[in-house]
Amino acid sequence: MANIVGKAGDRVLVKTKKAQEEGILMPSSDDKVVIVKLENGYNIGFDQKDVTEMKVVKKKSASDKIAGKKIKVDKNLPTIAVLHTGGTIASKVDYKSGGVIAQFSASDLIAMVPELKTIANVETELVSNMMSEDMFFENYQKLGTAIKKYAEKGVKGIIIGHGTDTLAYTSAALTFMFEQLNIPVMLVGSQRSSDRGSSDAAMNLVCAAEFIAQTDFVGVATCMHHSSGDDTCAIINGTKVRKMHTSRRDAFKAINDTPVALVDYSNRKVKFLKKNYAKKGSNDKVKLLDKFDNKVGLMKTYPNADPRLFEFFTKHYDAFVIEGTGLGHAPTNVGDNLKNYELLKKFINGGGVVAITSQCIYGRVHPSVYTNLRRLADIGCIFCEDMLPETAYIKLAWLMGNYPKEEARKMLAKNLRGEINNRLTFEEDFVEG
Amino acid sequence: MANIVGKAGDRVLVKTKKAQEEGILMPSSDDKVVIVKLENGYNIGFDQKDVTEMKVVKKKSASDKIAGKKIKVDKNLPTIAVLHTGGTIASKVDYKSGGVIAQFSASDLIAMVPELKTIANVETELVSNMMSEDMFFENYQKLGTAIKKYAEKGVKGIIIGHGTDTLAYTSAALTFMFEQLNIPVMLVGSQRSSDRGSSDAAMNLVCAAEFIAQTDFVGVATCMHHSSGDDTCAIINGTKVRKMHTSRRDAFKAINDTPVALVDYSNRKVKFLKKNYAKKGSNDKVKLLDKFDNKVGLMKTYPNADPRLFEFFTKHYDAFVIEGTGLGHAPTNVGDNLKNYELLKKFINGGGVVAITSQCIYGRVHPSVYTNLRRLADIGCIFCEDMLPETAYIKLAWLMGNYPKEEARKMLAKNLRGEINNRLTFEEDFVEG
Repeated sequence: MANIVGKAGDRVLVKTKKAQEEGILMPSSDDKVVIVKLENGYNIGFDQKDVTEMKVVKKKSASDKIAGKKIKVDKNLPTIAVLHTGGTIASKVDYKSGGVIAQFSASDLIAMVPELKTIANVETELVSNMMSEDMFFENYQKLGTAIKKYAEKGVKGIIIGHGTDTLAYTSAALTFMFEQLNIPVMLVGSQRSSDRGSSDAAMNLVCAAEFIAQTDFVGVATCMHHSSGDDTCAIINGTKVRKMHTSRRDAFKAINDTPVALVDYSNRKVKFLKKNYAKKGSNDKVKLLDKFDNKVGLMKTYPNADPRLFEFFTKHYDAFVIEGTGLGHAPTNVGDNLKNYELLKKFINGGGVVAITSQCIYGRVHPSVYTNLRRLADIGCIFCEDMLPETAYIKLAWLMGNYPKEEARKMLAKNLRGEINNRLTFEEDFVEG
Repeated sequence: MANIVGKAGDRVLVKTKKAQEEGILMPSSDDKVVIVKLENGYNIGFDQKDVTEMKVVKKKSASDKIAGKKIKVDKNLPTIAVLHTGGTIASKVDYKSGGVIAQFSASDLIAMVPELKTIANVETELVSNMMSEDMFFENYQKLGTAIKKYAEKGVKGIIIGHGTDTLAYTSAALTFMFEQLNIPVMLVGSQRSSDRGSSDAAMNLVCAAEFIAQTDFVGVATCMHHSSGDDTCAIINGTKVRKMHTSRRDAFKAINDTPVALVDYSNRKVKFLKKNYAKKGSNDKVKLLDKFDNKVGLMKTYPNADPRLFEFFTKHYDAFVIEGTGLGHAPTNVGDNLKNYELLKKFINGGGVVAITSQCIYGRVHPSVYTNLRRLADIGCIFCEDMLPETAYIKLAWLMGNYPKEEARKMLAKNLRGEINNRLTFEEDFVEG
């Protein structure tokens, strides 16, 4: 292992046996890893022990440094809290400041997106600093507590900076956790890091801030690019949103739903697509239920699925979601026997909860169209209508954490926060013909 | 339990403690279940032991009966083999004939879709009779053997009638199984049963037959509605297709790909969207490799995923596909430790194979953009580019069944049958900016 040199913000050259990369040295929360931001804007991490040579090519220039100076409060503007959890959206801040990400401050943010100053006074807090794929329920709880604090303090709304990978899971979790909420909470991420020409970070942040400043919307929603051009952001219900592309800026789609509203970035106009959204009342209390049951799982089914998969889930969990095929089928027949079906039946009879969703993603499951579906319904599997599998997983873990099991079971297939659209109110062609 | 009365094709009334339904009695392969086709076209199954009353409302009329009469061969038309495996597409044939589904014959099919007679001479064979969610690899093997038989006999092409739930998994399996093929094999299903006004069965069958009769295409593809109107069918590469809606007729979409061709139902014209498809040669041999490794799994990841999930897959399988988040992340960090990562590392060092795909469905995974991705790549996880998770699962099980492990590992991330589109040849905005 070579000497690890340089400070965050320096331009460095790193060599290993396999590779050689030059870029800006990034702060790293893991002291065994060297992180370098490449010209293309992406980060690369090297295990320190693999580094065969490392040198500073150019020291960080003093002018890159952003002082943590106090921002003036404009009393004519509303106040928005920005809570940060990590992810691509803060990557520019990291290396420009040269500091660790924990120094992420209001002035850093405003340096990155100066337009924010014209929309609102901004308060910021770093809640966690992680890649979103590593989130656990305890991260949702920390975030919930921080939201409650700012909501009760009287801010006009909250923006949450979040990695995009599991942003939709978090938005579902926060939606369920707040049985009552008095302000808008907007989840914002970016698909391209902030120092790339094509970054979506600034526009997503600005549109979220405009939406908070201009409207009376209450609840949890995402604010991300609506199309791949830099023209419109979509505000999508936190339980109906899914990341549908690994890299496109318009990856976040409303599934079995329409966006709540669109925000035009050029003229800053908000256009509501839904009329019956939750609005600010005169006496809104905040009610946070933040427990989760850790023994809840999500099982995707597939042809040739081993009965051991069913054994595993029925043995180790209190409840789980089946991401089945088509209208909600699970592979219950194993050749000539009903092994998987019998395992499910025994699990449910013993108090387990099984939720049925579809890997089709779009559309609705149905408990009675085919014999095999009827059989699942008859033993007590709960068909989750047009709910996303990921939302059903979060909802089930949240219900099992906060309610007695029988109540949780009943609430699962009932619409609580817009996670189920009524067949009659949402256009669907299921019953056609 | 009441007396079970009536013959398949009779109109019956069935009562249980919970429900009462009237409809056409269907043949049932399970003698403990009574299946009734309702007016809306869907089937309902009742456990015989739950039936409290059953009576025949109207005997099947003799005119409904379709005789198994010999079809005249038209020597000017090509011959197409129709292999049937069960599913919604045959549901009209069942109750009109009043016979068991095993009697599904060429004349039944032509009675259902008379236009087929004008396109081709049809030979049929019932390969299996099951709901597609219950398919195991041995069903693929049976189907492969039947395809080989007809392909070597010299038919112009083969249509496979298949349940839609796992049609895309089967199309991927058949695509890999035939290392060499000399004719088109078209998988066709229907989202609405054939006796409903909105059924897509006839049009999908006719378009598949026209495509086979008119073109020199070779390979496995699906032929299903391209839009929800009854105007066009899409021919999609068997490894790039996914069922994206539970009930719409245009549920089957080409993912990270364009359809190979469109077939216009009104004027029967075929329009190729791809130019470089495989074509008939002068000396095409059929080569079938039909083994699968049963110890291959598919694991979807999600926030708070229990390390036991990783323990289960690494303990019980030879190889598995991770359906991760975003660019291919798996939750490798568990709080302050790397428990899941360590399990994966040990599994791979012990000879296990791990394939990385994304639950985003659209887009491409990438092994080096973020530290956590680099870490997975460094221990030998194989990033499957823009391959669908379901296709990667089938490919991995097939590779492990037919090739030595080291070769299988290398072939996994290499394009064999169009399952991976080259970043440069397929439009993508990943590298933009």
